[in-house]
Amino acid sequence: MSSLKNISPKTLKGFRDFLPKEAVLRQKIINIIQTTFEKFGFDPIETPALEYAETLLGKYGSEADKLIYLFNDRGGRQIGLKYDQTVPLARIIAQYQNIPKPFKRYQIGTVWRAENPQHGRYREFVHCDIDIVGEKNILADGEIIVCALETTKKLGFKNAVMLINDRTLFAKIKMEFITSIDKLAKIGHNGVINELIRKGLTKTQAQKLLISIKNHQPTERLRLLFKYLKSYGLKEGVNFKFDPFLARGLDYYTESIFELVSPDYLSGSLGGGGRYDNLISLFTGKDEPAVGFAFGFDRLVEAIKNLNLINLPTTKTQILITVFNEITLNQSLSLAQEIRNKGINCEIYPNIEKKLDKQLKYADKKGIPFVVILGPEEIKKGAAKIKNMRTKEQKELLIKDIIKEFSNYHL
Amino acid sequence: MSSLKNISPKTLKGFRDFLPKEAVLRQKIINIIQTTFEKFGFDPIETPALEYAETLLGKYGSEADKLIYLFNDRGGRQIGLKYDQTVPLARIIAQYQNIPKPFKRYQIGTVWRAENPQHGRYREFVHCDIDIVGEKNILADGEIIVCALETTKKLGFKNAVMLINDRTLFAKIKMEFITSIDKLAKIGHNGVINELIRKGLTKTQAQKLLISIKNHQPTERLRLLFKYLKSYGLKEGVNFKFDPFLARGLDYYTESIFELVSPDYLSGSLGGGGRYDNLISLFTGKDEPAVGFAFGFDRLVEAIKNLNLINLPTTKTQILITVFNEITLNQSLSLAQEIRNKGINCEIYPNIEKKLDKQLKYADKKGIPFVVILGPEEIKKGAAKIKNMRTKEQKELLIKDIIKEFSNYHL
Repeated sequence: MSSLKNISPKTLKGFRDFLPKEAVLRQKIINIIQTTFEKFGFDPIETPALEYAETLLGKYGSEADKLIYLFNDRGGRQIGLKYDQTVPLARIIAQYQNIPKPFKRYQIGTVWRAENPQHGRYREFVHCDIDIVGEKNILADGEIIVCALETTKKLGFKNAVMLINDRTLFAKIKMEFITSIDKLAKIGHNGVINELIRKGLTKTQAQKLLISIKNHQPTERLRLLFKYLKSYGLKEGVNFKFDPFLARGLDYYTESIFELVSPDYLSGSLGGGGRYDNLISLFTGKDEPAVGFAFGFDRLVEAIKNLNLINLPTTKTQILITVFNEITLNQSLSLAQEIRNKGINCEIYPNIEKKLDKQLKYADKKGIPFVVILGPEEIKKGAAKIKNMRTKEQKELLIKDIIKEFSNYHL
Repeated sequence: MSSLKNISPKTLKGFRDFLPKEAVLRQKIINIIQTTFEKFGFDPIETPALEYAETLLGKYGSEADKLIYLFNDRGGRQIGLKYDQTVPLARIIAQYQNIPKPFKRYQIGTVWRAENPQHGRYREFVHCDIDIVGEKNILADGEIIVCALETTKKLGFKNAVMLINDRTLFAKIKMEFITSIDKLAKIGHNGVINELIRKGLTKTQAQKLLISIKNHQPTERLRLLFKYLKSYGLKEGVNFKFDPFLARGLDYYTESIFELVSPDYLSGSLGGGGRYDNLISLFTGKDEPAVGFAFGFDRLVEAIKNLNLINLPTTKTQILITVFNEITLNQSLSLAQEIRNKGINCEIYPNIEKKLDKQLKYADKKGIPFVVILGPEEIKKGAAKIKNMRTKEQKELLIKDIIKEFSNYHL
């Protein structure tokens, strides 16, 4: 057990711990996302963290391949940590041929990328994905978009807009130019022009290219999609918008592409997606239509914190019951159990040796809103004191009235 | 995008996919566990999947070390996948010195072990942990035990018993003998005797050792613990029991140890834990009292399935709304939105080209309990048909009465 020198307690670069305050918020957000995904008929699945390297490599394009965490396991197999949830989904579709289709699934889970953490990027983060596999009809794209927008609405974003484009409009443009065009919002018009020049175009050619893209019109499929989105009650120009410059980096998209942005949060998109009708053929040799969307969970959390959209206590505990001595403890324990049985989150201070003062300080530090004080005096009267830790108000109540009182506080 | 040969779609040995039916059940179980943990004042935390190898090694004992997934990352660092949630907790306590104590946290997450999957063991599984750090008082052990028992009760286990022992009772016994004694339930009295003989005892010595252990009595600390457990309303011999043979494999336990078993499920314990007052000192050089419990989530799921404790539909979707043609679609989409706004999980079939028959078959395969049929005839009357997919009953209702009707079905 003992070691000669102590182990230095630290996390790997690009990896993070989430202590209760942060974890409580993250969980709340995940619950809202999950509930909304399920409201649209998406069911959960889970896939392993580790996959064969072969499964992970060769479908994102070489830029992304560099970011995959690859290892050799003890059996000498080349394996890696999943880079996203889309490739495991494609594998699943190929592996379990009898899954009923259209297959609507969501997956909320961790993915890993060997990004350079010096750029403030993380190497471990959560993705929240919805996808519909086995349906080519544009109505599937519509369901994905409406569900993503509804999710942001439920999270408190008032002005989120889904930018929409069709990859087929870029059919005659080289992939390396597309990735430059995709940076328009980030590096601006001149930035894109300069990048295109570096990639071999003359200035005139680059400018012409941007003008020609600016004049793109929605494809027939997109026009139908927009009609459906209006049937769902969404407004063009408000909830969704045709964006001829939207390109999306990954090269596996085949038709519609989308990106969710909020004008209140300018550090990046909240998520993105699109149609990828030939990713699954990597496994099966046969095309299978698919469309999906992924929220970058960390972006969502950051935006929600910046915009103050969700306010939560720093703890899930609602009540601390203090302890006094060996004799009163019996009452404290059974009161705690009664309160818990009513579905209220309740803690008992776990040490009768500690002074009341210290116990109150603990509640304060942890952010517990109410404290029940149960000493010999109170017990004699069949009562207890309740202290509101925010207002510092304190009152005595009969024990049988305590639970009633707590429900009046609307914890 | 295209590859010369297809990628073979498979999972690594010892790793599993969970398709919706299974994932829905797992999520339900996790929700119950989480809610109960929070009822006892435990707050969530999250820690990375990957840790420095140094953090992971050297505290479980050499047997466990062999089971840690270790790698070298691209920067040449020795890293590994977390083996449990206890070591990351110890690291966190050492790293963030201003965490208010006693620190009550829960963590539900994936851990990895390089077990031999030929023995039907998995390499990736979920652990659900509660721990109290910074409190030596036996009341902390009590809270852990009561919370674990309450969790199994909420999951539907009627007869779960917490076996309790104190490691100090084994103070004079070698660790290698303790690991043999720990196998009593698994390999029986003779099995243990034989193992002890193989480890160097004579038959007489081995028998004497077992008899002496059988005569162990609860320590003073345990007697106080049992008194507290009774104050919580638990019954000795029913909800908890002194078990002099309980040993627990890991060598970091220092005093109380516990293991949760169910007489209805004999394939192993549902979880275990104990007090480990010097694990954190590996990082800080200073002892810090701590006590905790971990549920083996896969065991729980298996037991719940075997005992039929929770019955769930195979999908979270409650209603499928069918589509008919381009004209009726508008009504289908807005009805779907209305139903979703009432908090009911509702799917729209995403292709108007597909015959009603095919749409009903989809609902059936996926296990969706109700289908709403909205064709031109119904729309003319401002009505829709509702089909109960289990009873095959079908009736026509005005659209405005549909939502009301669904709430009567108690979905």
